[in-house]
Amino acid sequence: MKGRLFVVSAPSGAGKTTLLKLVMRDVPKLSFSISHTTRSPRPGEVDGVDYHFVTKSRFEKMIGQGAFLEYARVHDNLYGTSSDAVEQQLSRGIDVILDIDVQGAQIIRKSGQIDGAFVFIAPPGLGELEKRLRGRGTESEEAVKTRMANAKQELQAAKEYEYLLINDDLEQAARVLSSIVTAERARGHRSASGEPITSNYCK
Amino acid sequence: MKGRLFVVSAPSGAGKTTLLKLVMRDVPKLSFSISHTTRSPRPGEVDGVDYHFVTKSRFEKMIGQGAFLEYARVHDNLYGTSSDAVEQQLSRGIDVILDIDVQGAQIIRKSGQIDGAFVFIAPPGLGELEKRLRGRGTESEEAVKTRMANAKQELQAAKEYEYLLINDDLEQAARVLSSIVTAERARGHRSASGEPITSNYCK
Repeated sequence: MKGRLFVVSAPSGAGKTTLLKLVMRDVPKLSFSISHTTRSPRPGEVDGVDYHFVTKSRFEKMIGQGAFLEYARVHDNLYGTSSDAVEQQLSRGIDVILDIDVQGAQIIRKSGQIDGAFVFIAPPGLGELEKRLRGRGTESEEAVKTRMANAKQELQAAKEYEYLLINDDLEQAARVLSSIVTAERARGHRSASGEPITSNYCK
Repeated sequence: MKGRLFVVSAPSGAGKTTLLKLVMRDVPKLSFSISHTTRSPRPGEVDGVDYHFVTKSRFEKMIGQGAFLEYARVHDNLYGTSSDAVEQQLSRGIDVILDIDVQGAQIIRKSGQIDGAFVFIAPPGLGELEKRLRGRGTESEEAVKTRMANAKQELQAAKEYEYLLINDDLEQAARVLSSIVTAERARGHRSASGEPITSNYCK
């Protein structure tokens, strides 16, 4: 049976990274989408595991070929999700989580290329979000304000997602996200050959 | 937040009853829909718990009032699901499982009165189903054949359901059904007031 794409977005401070780690631990046959990037590998990062590291000219050639489900420029580097990379995993029956911002998710939704399930992870509330951002102690006052404004705008986007998950309890939120993956696997009409899953029964 | 209706159907021998008991044990705020019937209570059955026991004339009056989401005659008795009974539970924030055959499910789907999630529970395969029916030792050869023919026809109906759950492992199937309930609770745009659940965040 072909895998399913889960497009997961969250504003900064929603606790997405920790949450996704818990879900990856609990749910078999689930992996992250591996992005392409033009930035240099950081110490310890492995090509084809953390990212597909490519040159700028290769990346731009791929853009020209329509190879990306979505891509974006961040701090002079290009990041993108290649259709082929995702499709390779899906065709091996692996469900893929694509951890992406709301703009990227919008592009994928509108492209209609891949029929994914869209999950938005919200922090318990904006007050709680601010506390978390300040709690990091690594952000300037200005940076916190900018991030809060962005978060408010991003939360507007939650309405466009199929699933909304409020991360007010990490273990509980992980159970819900794992349940979403499990439930989506039981949604009808999916098989490797494109046959409805019921075809074995309905001859 | 308003509850959600889960319409669950399965051919005979799919192991639905045991499965539903496991899910009821594991998932909080989930209950069975209580049907109306004109048959007499059996020893131990309690009015308003096992069924709403009503007279034939009362039942027929309710039919006239359009009070039933669906109803059917079985062995000279009438059985029906009243909209009010379901709505009462839903409005208290309780998710409701309606255990019903495919014909009843079709009627509810077509009525469009209640936006439920439709789950079909299939046995591992027809061979396995036959084994289970014979394994009961309570069915005549003729009865097994009739049930098998009915089951094949019922399995055709699986295509109309949103979720298909194959009960090849009872504990695993219970986990999947519990996940479907949990995931549906995270699906967007539901709250007691009809407001999108995101309204707290998106002011």
